[in-house]
Amino acid sequence: MEKIANSRFSLHPLLAERWSPLAFDSRPIAPEHLGSLLEAARWAPSCFNEQPWSFLVGTRSDPEGHARLLSCIVEANARWAAKAPVLMLSVASSSFARNGKPNRHAQHDVGLAVENMVIQAQTMGLVVHQMGGFDAQKARRQLAIPEGQEPMAMIAIGYPAEVDSLPEELRDRERAPRSRKELSAIAFGAAWASALPDLT
Amino acid sequence: MEKIANSRFSLHPLLAERWSPLAFDSRPIAPEHLGSLLEAARWAPSCFNEQPWSFLVGTRSDPEGHARLLSCIVEANARWAAKAPVLMLSVASSSFARNGKPNRHAQHDVGLAVENMVIQAQTMGLVVHQMGGFDAQKARRQLAIPEGQEPMAMIAIGYPAEVDSLPEELRDRERAPRSRKELSAIAFGAAWASALPDLT
Repeated sequence: MEKIANSRFSLHPLLAERWSPLAFDSRPIAPEHLGSLLEAARWAPSCFNEQPWSFLVGTRSDPEGHARLLSCIVEANARWAAKAPVLMLSVASSSFARNGKPNRHAQHDVGLAVENMVIQAQTMGLVVHQMGGFDAQKARRQLAIPEGQEPMAMIAIGYPAEVDSLPEELRDRERAPRSRKELSAIAFGAAWASALPDLT
Repeated sequence: MEKIANSRFSLHPLLAERWSPLAFDSRPIAPEHLGSLLEAARWAPSCFNEQPWSFLVGTRSDPEGHARLLSCIVEANARWAAKAPVLMLSVASSSFARNGKPNRHAQHDVGLAVENMVIQAQTMGLVVHQMGGFDAQKARRQLAIPEGQEPMAMIAIGYPAEVDSLPEELRDRERAPRSRKELSAIAFGAAWASALPDLT
């Protein structure tokens, strides 16, 4: 199924065609493709090149690890995410490694890295769906995440599947069009809520 | 100048070739290209589709706005960022609009949106350099950013320029190769710091 962004200004197809489906095929991802996904995150920019990201990964080749990640996902998400052959947890390091001071860009920079991964996935015919709906405390315990490392999002990755492969109660949600705020609600001139002259 | 990522697994050229230069040409960006950059951010994924991102934008067509953004950037960055025809500040909304509860994914999700913008820029021959080095309190005052909205990063955008266009003391930094942690330092199996079976 395609859900192309309904954008006023043109978007590169990799961005316009990206969306976050619920329907995953259980077919595994080749290790070299998994490697490419992680490389994409690795080469993202970050504040002072701190690279404050880590990824805990459970694949079909490690069924116990996959199950451990899945067990941290809330039931409403686990219903569809269970099929994804790769589950990851993104983690942000709260302090700078070199001086221990708080890194106020850590979570933001993890987002930069993950979106690189999402785009790399798109180039390989893979789809990605991130979830805020997981138990961060349980993840910390189950995955032995140390203090100072903040679990950010669960990430399901795999090949897309047909809508009809989903439980019936999820199909309407899968078919719903993508929606976004108006551009003018997120892009301002050089004062909050002012119109951006170039786009008016 | 090219600085291709030295990755072990293959990366799409848009990701492999992206880096954050200091040398910007002062040539302006067409309004429709600016529109595409902001659309790229707009169509990023976010937790509950909250879209907790805003962008304050100063371009050459609004010299006062451009100067206002520039005035919030620390001197070490302003030296090179002044030439960029577009300056932006990314802002994260700390609470969910629908219920006022804290959004623990807001800053992360702004990162997702900005990296979409970075990739869109790359497709148009533009380069992007984000900065943590700015005065967030000054930005809040100068740009009238309300409480509950968190200034995240200054973003310089424009066409690339030759290294020699930079002040001499910045040229070595511009020429330095890109470096990253080893993949094994950021990608684990389903337990912190464990080896990821698929990549060993």
